[in-house]
Amino acid sequence: MTQPVRKAAIVGGGVIGAGWAARFLLNGIDVAVFDPDPETGRKTAEVVGNARRAMIRLHGQALPAEGVLTIASTLAEAVADADFIQESLPEREDLKQRVLAQIDAAMPDHAVIGSSTSGLLPSRLQSAMTRPDRLVVGHPFNPVYLLPLVEVCGGEQTSQQTIDTAAAIYERIGMKVLKVRKEIDGFIADRLLEAVWREGLWLINDGIATASELDDAIRFGAGMRWAFMGTFLTYRLAGGEAGMRHFLTQFGPALKLPWTKLEAPELTDKLIEAVASQSDEQAGGIDLRTYERLRDNCLVDLTHALERNDFASGAVAKAHRAHLGGQIRADGSAGADGRLLTIATPVQPEWIDYNDHLTEHYYLKLFGDATDVVLERIGAGTDYVAAGNSWYTVETHIRHLGQARLGEPVEVRTRVLAVDGKRLHLFHEMTSLAQAATIATAEHMLVHVDTAAERSVPAPRAMLDKAEALVAGQAHLPAPDGQGRQIKMPGQDRT
Amino acid sequence: MTQPVRKAAIVGGGVIGAGWAARFLLNGIDVAVFDPDPETGRKTAEVVGNARRAMIRLHGQALPAEGVLTIASTLAEAVADADFIQESLPEREDLKQRVLAQIDAAMPDHAVIGSSTSGLLPSRLQSAMTRPDRLVVGHPFNPVYLLPLVEVCGGEQTSQQTIDTAAAIYERIGMKVLKVRKEIDGFIADRLLEAVWREGLWLINDGIATASELDDAIRFGAGMRWAFMGTFLTYRLAGGEAGMRHFLTQFGPALKLPWTKLEAPELTDKLIEAVASQSDEQAGGIDLRTYERLRDNCLVDLTHALERNDFASGAVAKAHRAHLGGQIRADGSAGADGRLLTIATPVQPEWIDYNDHLTEHYYLKLFGDATDVVLERIGAGTDYVAAGNSWYTVETHIRHLGQARLGEPVEVRTRVLAVDGKRLHLFHEMTSLAQAATIATAEHMLVHVDTAAERSVPAPRAMLDKAEALVAGQAHLPAPDGQGRQIKMPGQDRT
Repeated sequence: MTQPVRKAAIVGGGVIGAGWAARFLLNGIDVAVFDPDPETGRKTAEVVGNARRAMIRLHGQALPAEGVLTIASTLAEAVADADFIQESLPEREDLKQRVLAQIDAAMPDHAVIGSSTSGLLPSRLQSAMTRPDRLVVGHPFNPVYLLPLVEVCGGEQTSQQTIDTAAAIYERIGMKVLKVRKEIDGFIADRLLEAVWREGLWLINDGIATASELDDAIRFGAGMRWAFMGTFLTYRLAGGEAGMRHFLTQFGPALKLPWTKLEAPELTDKLIEAVASQSDEQAGGIDLRTYERLRDNCLVDLTHALERNDFASGAVAKAHRAHLGGQIRADGSAGADGRLLTIATPVQPEWIDYNDHLTEHYYLKLFGDATDVVLERIGAGTDYVAAGNSWYTVETHIRHLGQARLGEPVEVRTRVLAVDGKRLHLFHEMTSLAQAATIATAEHMLVHVDTAAERSVPAPRAMLDKAEALVAGQAHLPAPDGQGRQIKMPGQDRT
Repeated sequence: MTQPVRKAAIVGGGVIGAGWAARFLLNGIDVAVFDPDPETGRKTAEVVGNARRAMIRLHGQALPAEGVLTIASTLAEAVADADFIQESLPEREDLKQRVLAQIDAAMPDHAVIGSSTSGLLPSRLQSAMTRPDRLVVGHPFNPVYLLPLVEVCGGEQTSQQTIDTAAAIYERIGMKVLKVRKEIDGFIADRLLEAVWREGLWLINDGIATASELDDAIRFGAGMRWAFMGTFLTYRLAGGEAGMRHFLTQFGPALKLPWTKLEAPELTDKLIEAVASQSDEQAGGIDLRTYERLRDNCLVDLTHALERNDFASGAVAKAHRAHLGGQIRADGSAGADGRLLTIATPVQPEWIDYNDHLTEHYYLKLFGDATDVVLERIGAGTDYVAAGNSWYTVETHIRHLGQARLGEPVEVRTRVLAVDGKRLHLFHEMTSLAQAATIATAEHMLVHVDTAAERSVPAPRAMLDKAEALVAGQAHLPAPDGQGRQIKMPGQDRT
């Protein structure tokens, strides 16, 4: 098949089939679904609705026009004009064999079939087909519309062209193809998943742990690493400077211990050499410290991502930070001269440009954070925002007077220049402690808004009182250098 | 122990020991490390450096003042005045038994010991101790300073007070304590991890897959889910509307198939009932669709987090989005009215706040990118900067007139208002195509500099000619709305 896929048929409309339908549709490909369940239309629409919401969050405007969804009343109708068929029936070999033969009989000459089986052998699945060369396993992971992995595995009679066509189609819809080079029950991923599942069932069976404890044992620990690095790269890093060979030496003896019901293979010199050399190849010459930094960056970013959902490790970090909260160094309290200390931090690695200087837009990030500290002090913190009101910055004037480098400690001190019923006038000064110099200033005008209505409204009296007290506490200070400045060329008239 | 822990001793300074040292230090607790390796000081400092960087990224200003790190020259010196001792020696039972007895002999009366063992039984580890009641397993995961999980498991002689004290200390330093109620080799987590590891070793041993393929089979699929939901909740969702009982019915027969070398327990009615009822309890009455939405939100946010690192599933999504063609190129060419089109893009997922709006400092990021497009056009692109000169932004004035949401297409059009020998005056207007409205403007003054000398110098004639041509091409346009504005409260005198 050289032309692009225009229509996919989904045979079997359960969780996996509906997930496939969503992935094809949201990548602009028409889909026909067949399943004898009379509820198929409703169930598919619900999954596609979830998927649409998720994909818009994931890709935004980049999504193409959605394909057209049909619920077919017969299998033949679904596959008759399909370029590609994905079979997602229950994991019963006899059932799959029978239906795959029916699909084969009804599909166009150029079509190929992917089977979603988690572990049945394609050589056996294709045995009753007239055109067995057209069947390949394409094993996805739930939710199919979000997780990129698909294992592609051909049987004895699968043609190379079918494998290549299916792989190209899966890549076209945003998937990561893992070619399973040797046909084996469970392929690669499910052999690992099934080992976890069975060991977990043993632990419940033997009364050692509950489902919830088993899940916690993964999601607060190794699961975080597995989101981006598998077991082998993770263990290479665990080996420290001596790497995978050291890890195998250190943990090799544990392979003899009853740490799981699964017996390990003998750790022969040949196996050690295979694992270590494959690990070296996988690491691609990138050194330990670089990988450690990448791992830590990913873990921090994943934790923040989960914190947005107040779930799992993100919820733990959030609760811990609240506990640490008594010790925040820059909490907006007034210094000796009345200005509020709103930021105190070294310049962090992700804020710098190629030249190790604090990047332009991160000045505004820091000044914005300083504004948030002031808002927290007058009672307009996150709880207030969640309740439907907020202060929006409507105007900003930044002056750059110097620069700050990676690691250089900087502080922001803030003047609350004025407040009226719905306006707040702030002036931040950023200093480098190392240079003992002001390196930037930011003047802001904020307006108090009703966020749902998206219009300005008066702020509550108690909040205005707090803001006015801050203004009064700084009233003895002269106007800050740079207040009310205009941008203009020298000699240009002030307007 | 009723008072808070002030000093922790770390015995064994490898990857795990150094990780513990970092976690205690960054939570404000003094640490003494003992390891016979003469390189311990350097290695610990490197791990603490990595950890400091990661924890500043994770928690920002919330971090307390760091504890003091000491490298002790003897074990007795390390533990003599410690409130808590964490043992992280190699996984050899005889070695751990001997050293734990030494720690016991040298530690203060009130101290307790946590062992980092991945799976050795605490009842055996404590057998040579004078005060065996003081030992508990506290099994962490690498990197210890970022992953929250710690398995806490007492031996036959461990006191309840020791378990409670250790759990409180671990929670105090931000960890998620999983109490292992029944002592078993490998505890809970490592039984699962070890099953994956051994199955993986078999697949390499048998020539089925490589280390890299095994890792890909996890990180692009199930690993993404495991970062926040373990196997049991995941499979409950895979069961669709009928839940865990349906899943067990559907995948129960697969437990008999050779999908891993690990034999499954017999799926008796009793086991089905235990798994299903524990799953119901775990789900806590929250319905399928709610969990699906939470799962999808987490997966999207995790993908964006990895996209920031251009790694794993994040790199797949990024490449796919580029293929979908949403990102439009704006090269700074002049439109019909003479203004330069400098940015044209949908609002990207990593630019938005919790409310799905373009975040404040990303406006400046986009305006800064627009400025770079203009500089490229006058011959001051990256090559010019690399050669030692540049244009620095010295002043910026931003007005916010509206908002843009995730996915909304925005454009920036740029006026080159004026240029002299070493100054450049720009004015950007950002419009939302969906709203057909200007949502923000930015006025900038730039100065031409010698970057090494860090002072302003005249720009070359050819560059000025190009800039002047742009000014001339726009001279017919009226002054942009908002040019030369000052920030001030209503009624305040202009200065």
